[in-house]
Amino acid sequence: MQNIRVILVNPSHPGNIGAASRAMKNMGLSRLYLVAPETFPHPEAYYRAAGADDVLNSAIVTADLPQALAGCEWAYAASARSRRLDLSGCDVRQCAEQIVQMPRQPEVALVFGRESSGLTNGELAQCSMHVQIPADEQFRSLNLAAAVQIFAYEIRMAWLNVKNIQSEIKSRALAPHEQMLGFYSHLEAILKKVEFLNPAHPKKLMQRLQRMFNRAQLDTTEVNILRGILTSIDKMI
Amino acid sequence: MQNIRVILVNPSHPGNIGAASRAMKNMGLSRLYLVAPETFPHPEAYYRAAGADDVLNSAIVTADLPQALAGCEWAYAASARSRRLDLSGCDVRQCAEQIVQMPRQPEVALVFGRESSGLTNGELAQCSMHVQIPADEQFRSLNLAAAVQIFAYEIRMAWLNVKNIQSEIKSRALAPHEQMLGFYSHLEAILKKVEFLNPAHPKKLMQRLQRMFNRAQLDTTEVNILRGILTSIDKMI
Repeated sequence: MQNIRVILVNPSHPGNIGAASRAMKNMGLSRLYLVAPETFPHPEAYYRAAGADDVLNSAIVTADLPQALAGCEWAYAASARSRRLDLSGCDVRQCAEQIVQMPRQPEVALVFGRESSGLTNGELAQCSMHVQIPADEQFRSLNLAAAVQIFAYEIRMAWLNVKNIQSEIKSRALAPHEQMLGFYSHLEAILKKVEFLNPAHPKKLMQRLQRMFNRAQLDTTEVNILRGILTSIDKMI
Repeated sequence: MQNIRVILVNPSHPGNIGAASRAMKNMGLSRLYLVAPETFPHPEAYYRAAGADDVLNSAIVTADLPQALAGCEWAYAASARSRRLDLSGCDVRQCAEQIVQMPRQPEVALVFGRESSGLTNGELAQCSMHVQIPADEQFRSLNLAAAVQIFAYEIRMAWLNVKNIQSEIKSRALAPHEQMLGFYSHLEAILKKVEFLNPAHPKKLMQRLQRMFNRAQLDTTEVNILRGILTSIDKMI
């Protein structure tokens, strides 16, 4: 989680900075950037941090967003409102899954706007993705630290899931890509032999079957069973 | 979501009561119970509610936890600490999925303890389930409103997922059970014909194949394609 920085743009309340630090530390995040905070440092920030003083003490204060984003490969902009901008969008859970699944753990920023007015269009344009918290349409605006809490929580959940999935994959070895390709060409050959697949009019049959078998997340033994069935059919013909 | 009440036991800071109300309303929850709050009502609560005044105004204040739990069929106790009590446990996401999938929408309570010391063992014993927020072991104690925010967010996500799955099932009609059984007996017959399945030694082949196809969540068209393949094989033999 050391590749993830949380950037608060122009926060006005020191209490929110402290509460955001606590939310981060609760979920294992530690790198806080503050872009032109109105009041920082401040005793209220330490009070609301409730022990996450290390996050506050190591916070990096910058004059503008580009400085805070320096060195980042990915920047996700948190937004409660839907805006008609040319940014790809996803929800917080998808964002968190993307982040923990990125190869090589690149530098990633989560960018949060002002309490009152969020991020400007100019700031949004510096981010690669627009992330929505799916709040109730009637009351969409979350407290700044509450929004940080949800992001940090989802990143921790995604990280715990990846750890679990990795141990599950170890225990049930999913078939590697080459093995799946081998199975699909064997299947295609047999479907032609039994004249279910007409090479002149293949339609989208193979794509459809591949989508179906991909959904089943086959392991190596299962692919071997299926190929055994294809071989038996071939012999019988 | 009208069957879900949020119970704060003995909260000491009016600001947390307000922030919890805002967190609830952001995620579509509205029913707040306060067990012996130290200071309520209070301007700080309205300030931090940031517009969720209706949740505060309709909050029900009780003298003790049993009064607040009256009429509930399920009570989930939020806890950051792991305690050695005889309560079944789950995490917040599982809790939320359980709640939205309960038939007949029974009255459900989410119970949150004091800022300083959580719930007493006596209070925990009145709850049916113990729910953990998977916080970092090194810094487990969340702010009260932040914990309410995570619960409310997970309930909303679970509720949105149920709505999506329902519409997805409608748009992609999964094959009904009888159709799957028909496919499995057709498959079994062909496997015997091509002598892949030896009736004298069936082992667990059919169970294994069924588990695999169940994972793929086949729709009606896909089952028809698979049966078409089986028929073509049969003719060719």
